Amino acid sequence: MQIYLSGEIHTDWRDQIVEGAKGLDVMFSGPVTDHAASDDCGVAILGPEDDKFWHDRKGAQMNAIRTRRGIEMADVVVVRFGEQYKQWNAAFDAGYAAALGKSLIILHGPDHQHPLKEIDAAALAVAETPHQVVQILRYVLEGTLPA
Amino acid sequence: MQIYLSGEIHTDWRDQIVEGAKGLDVMFSGPVTDHAASDDCGVAILGPEDDKFWHDRKGAQMNAIRTRRGIEMADVVVVRFGEQYKQWNAAFDAGYAAALGKSLIILHGPDHQHPLKEIDAAALAVAETPHQVVQILRYVLEGTLPA
Amino acid sequence: MQIYLSGEIHTDWRDQIVEGAKGLDVMFSGPVTDHAASDDCGVAILGPEDDKFWHDRKGAQMNAIRTRRGIEMADVVVVRFGEQYKQWNAAFDAGYAAALGKSLIILHGPDHQHPLKEIDAAALAVAETPHQVVQILRYVLEGTLPA
Amino acid sequence: MQIYLSGEIHTDWRDQIVEGAKGLDVMFSGPVTDHAASDDCGVAILGPEDDKFWHDRKGAQMNAIRTRRGIEMADVVVVRFGEQYKQWNAAFDAGYAAALGKSLIILHGPDHQHPLKEIDAAALAVAETPHQVVQILRYVLEGTLPA
Amino acid sequence: MQIYLSGEIHTDWRDQIVEGAKGLDVMFSGPVTDHAASDDCGVAILGPEDDKFWHDRKGAQMNAIRTRRGIEMADVVVVRFGEQYKQWNAAFDAGYAAALGKSLIILHGPDHQHPLKEIDAAALAVAETPHQVVQILRYVLEGTLPA
Amino acid sequence: MQIYLSGEIHTDWRDQIVEGAKGLDVMFSGPVTDHAASDDCGVAILGPEDDKFWHDRKGAQMNAIRTRRGIEMADVVVVRFGEQYKQWNAAFDAGYAAALGKSLIILHGPDHQHPLKEIDAAALAVAETPHQVVQILRYVLEGTLPA
Amino acid sequence: MQIYLSGEIHTDWRDQIVEGAKGLDVMFSGPVTDHAASDDCGVAILGPEDDKFWHDRKGAQMNAIRTRRGIEMADVVVVRFGEQYKQWNAAFDAGYAAALGKSLIILHGPDHQHPLKEIDAAALAVAETPHQVVQILRYVLEGTLPA
Amino acid sequence: MQIYLSGEIHTDWRDQIVEGAKGLDVMFSGPVTDHAASDDCGVAILGPEDDKFWHDRKGAQMNAIRTRRGIEMADVVVVRFGEQYKQWNAAFDAGYAAALGKSLIILHGPDHQHPLKEIDAAALAVAETPHQVVQILRYVLEGTLPA
Repeated sequence: MQIYLSGEIHTDWRDQIVEGAKGLDVMFSGPVTDHAASDDCGVAILGPEDDKFWHDRKGAQMNAIRTRRGIEMADVVVVRFGEQYKQWNAAFDAGYAAALGKSLIILHGPDHQHPLKEIDAAALAVAETPHQVVQILRYVLEGTLPA
Repeated sequence: MQIYLSGEIHTDWRDQIVEGAKGLDVMFSGPVTDHAASDDCGVAILGPEDDKFWHDRKGAQMNAIRTRRGIEMADVVVVRFGEQYKQWNAAFDAGYAAALGKSLIILHGPDHQHPLKEIDAAALAVAETPHQVVQILRYVLEGTLPA
Repeated sequence: MQIYLSGEIHTDWRDQIVEGAKGLDVMFSGPVTDHAASDDCGVAILGPEDDKFWHDRKGAQMNAIRTRRGIEMADVVVVRFGEQYKQWNAAFDAGYAAALGKSLIILHGPDHQHPLKEIDAAALAVAETPHQVVQILRYVLEGTLPA
Repeated sequence: MQIYLSGEIHTDWRDQIVEGAKGLDVMFSGPVTDHAASDDCGVAILGPEDDKFWHDRKGAQMNAIRTRRGIEMADVVVVRFGEQYKQWNAAFDAGYAAALGKSLIILHGPDHQHPLKEIDAAALAVAETPHQVVQILRYVLEGTLPA
Repeated sequence: MQIYLSGEIHTDWRDQIVEGAKGLDVMFSGPVTDHAASDDCGVAILGPEDDKFWHDRKGAQMNAIRTRRGIEMADVVVVRFGEQYKQWNAAFDAGYAAALGKSLIILHGPDHQHPLKEIDAAALAVAETPHQVVQILRYVLEGTLPA
Repeated sequence: MQIYLSGEIHTDWRDQIVEGAKGLDVMFSGPVTDHAASDDCGVAILGPEDDKFWHDRKGAQMNAIRTRRGIEMADVVVVRFGEQYKQWNAAFDAGYAAALGKSLIILHGPDHQHPLKEIDAAALAVAETPHQVVQILRYVLEGTLPA
Repeated sequence: MQIYLSGEIHTDWRDQIVEGAKGLDVMFSGPVTDHAASDDCGVAILGPEDDKFWHDRKGAQMNAIRTRRGIEMADVVVVRFGEQYKQWNAAFDAGYAAALGKSLIILHGPDHQHPLKEIDAAALAVAETPHQVVQILRYVLEGTLPA
Repeated sequence: MQIYLSGEIHTDWRDQIVEGAKGLDVMFSGPVTDHAASDDCGVAILGPEDDKFWHDRKGAQMNAIRTRRGIEMADVVVVRFGEQYKQWNAAFDAGYAAALGKSLIILHGPDHQHPLKEIDAAALAVAETPHQVVQILRYVLEGTLPA
């Protein structure tokens, strides 16, 4: 099963899921999580821009080569919303995945419940911890529940 | 041409676009913009919930009947990001529309340029004012530019 | 908005919805609800069969010309489960509509809640009365809630 | 060839087919057949619900991650209707598979012939025994008929 | 309901259906039935060809502009096989329509039953007379059976 | 029938086709043919760019709102290659239309036959004059050939 | 590259192509070519029918499990028309493959050129011998032409 | 990741990319780059044509078996425009890929910037050198930027 891990890049939630899912028949993908590289990839490769808008455009489109393929190949898309920042790209990924009919798992703390209600409503599971995501993957693949 | 107006519901930007586009061959749709009705529609019709999470779920799913149809029928989806709030549903709509291949116009002030870079990068136009959106619609439909 | 009314044919729930939705911008369609005609249409037109299995096959395929078109053209598919009978064709229609990405409203009494859980889970609303379905349609189209 | 085995979970029909198909180039998948785990997976992992409706919802959506992927990846979907229970999820799976254009094989006893007529009419084969399903798979893959 | 009438062009079966369906909410389309025009349209408009193969190619592709659109817009595709000729284009149209998920009605006499078995097996109805096709359309649209 | 007229904008070929097709049941669409407006629409509405690359990008994306919708809505896409200029956007439109399964008519003089061979090979008709395109449309719609 | 070999089953053309293509990176599939098994598979497995029409239906639908999957998985569909018989299933397969956008190669002798013109017109190559089909596959895969 | 390398065939840009990408998890495909074979494949295998138009048609359609499959299987389509020739097939491929939602990288020198603006506007990256394309692939796959 192919899993795409979208969203927040400032904590180790991806590592926790990958570690916890060891032994399961899953393959993970996700965006480039090196924040500086992700912001600057466009101009670093294709040349500098004076205008920050186009600097960002070049980078965002280059990242889209990776992220769209990751979502399109995935069976399950997990989207994590952290405590900080706008995270509009995470919400965009969730909408993109929903329109493609992917199974969505949304991962966020209780504080974000109301503003995320439309996104949660498009999901097949809403989890609070990476550990729960691992348990879902284990159940979906092997039919076993936590003791 | 069918236009879906997604996003911020606290200013009169929709009215400005609809008013400015008078005489053009366009039809507008959008979400329910009565905030209280939108939040409570689910429980008002289908019965109350003790848990706010399911209260919100019922409402968000009922609203999805309208919003998904609106986006799916649209030729152009305009998504407005305001100054306040998380607005994750706006970003979700943008992703949903992008995955369906809709023409996206994103409308936001200059402050949001960096956090919206992935969404702007999926758009065919990024505007700052409702007036610009009207000018785009007029150009696209009639080929005429502002004097 | 196109509404397909699938399922139970022994009560007047379709009439209640059509009547209640008067004045809304909706068009309704549904299966042939004359039970005898629906069972015998195949052999009545294309000739008799000795074997009940093929008698039924001829009729079910003729009805499918109508029902598939109705579901495919619909924006919203309402599926009603009554108190009696197997009603597997209603559940089949729900699955067919779900796979096509239609907005589903499931209508059933509280007794059927557990055996319908997978179907309810694919729906955007689960109602108990035709009146609630009318209220949903009114809210979705006009944004107004019952007083 | 990928085969999804949907429906009744109280007899060993899946085992009979898997055993009988040994040596054929087929891969089988299906739902979680542990009834208790299937009913409770949602609350076991994501936390308890007071309301049985939401208890069921959480579980049904978690199971949908597995079942939808299984059906979508399948070349052939076999749906078994047993003697008991409503089995609306089996009929839902059949409709879901039909709308995706999957080859359907329906497996049921003669008593259910009339209420299953719409579902049988969407199938490429209607069998009464697991052994017949194995014979179909062998013929489809290897072109050989039973002696 | 849009009906495409494909196949045999040497008898008046299309006229019988159109006449019989008067008063029903149907629109009919079909190929150009002027045999000479259909054969020569390509070279008549785009210039002559020495080689009959390319003469035919030019005509067949020009006719395809009409026939593919007709089939793609149709809800129901009726394919008539007459007593004479190869009629491979009729069978091609049936396959084309089947792959697009159109409702197929096949119309042929009893002599052709065995060689048409694969095509009949893809159809929702197999009729012997134009009158039966009209009865099917009336039943599908209005739910009424012949007295 | 919806016709999109793509390509060369320096001669009156579109007018000739529209004039010649009077009385036929067709609707025409096409790009903005005011060259200056088409080049500058992006910056005229959304603000100037120092860099010609982004000046062009803004305009090309704004024009894409119109051209993609025109092609997607069309039944037939006519692409005209003139004597001058690179006309890569015409070839791009032809590829875009081909991938969507549109009926293509390519219109060009004999000099361009070899470099256009891949595009001609994707077309259902290759014409040399606007008059021939009108004759094709008349034949396709009404079945009549030029005297 | 996946190749589906459809059509005539009375000569060894499939063997010639498979033999000639040895060493190329291709996988072949096709229908069951044992004529008796193909005709009787339905009743042999699922039980006899008194009526030849349903005898044929059962068999044709069982064969469709194999043939549709073969065509849907193929990159290239080769359809062979022999000298004898109606071969409507071959033409049906060609139409089915064309609607799915498969690359078609049609294989037939010069006598059938006129009645096959619509099918040839949907193909990317029209060959007269199995040897030519092998040469096409070799060119397409390896870029080499016969000496 | 599958990469299709479309366009100019007179310089060694493909070799540079393939060489530079050694060690990355990529598979490359592209058209037949032997110009003479590509022009003559149709007549070499299927027999000569007197008319250059049909000579070219036969070849272009045979090449289309390879090129369409290559584009359809690709995750990323790189289209190179050289200094010379019309290169309309390159622009056609770009349009074809864009309509299928492929990630496009356009590769051309600064002189072609204005006439390629519509094609660049459909791309996720516009590069000037094969080396930049390699750097993009490395970043997209491994997240690493050039030092």
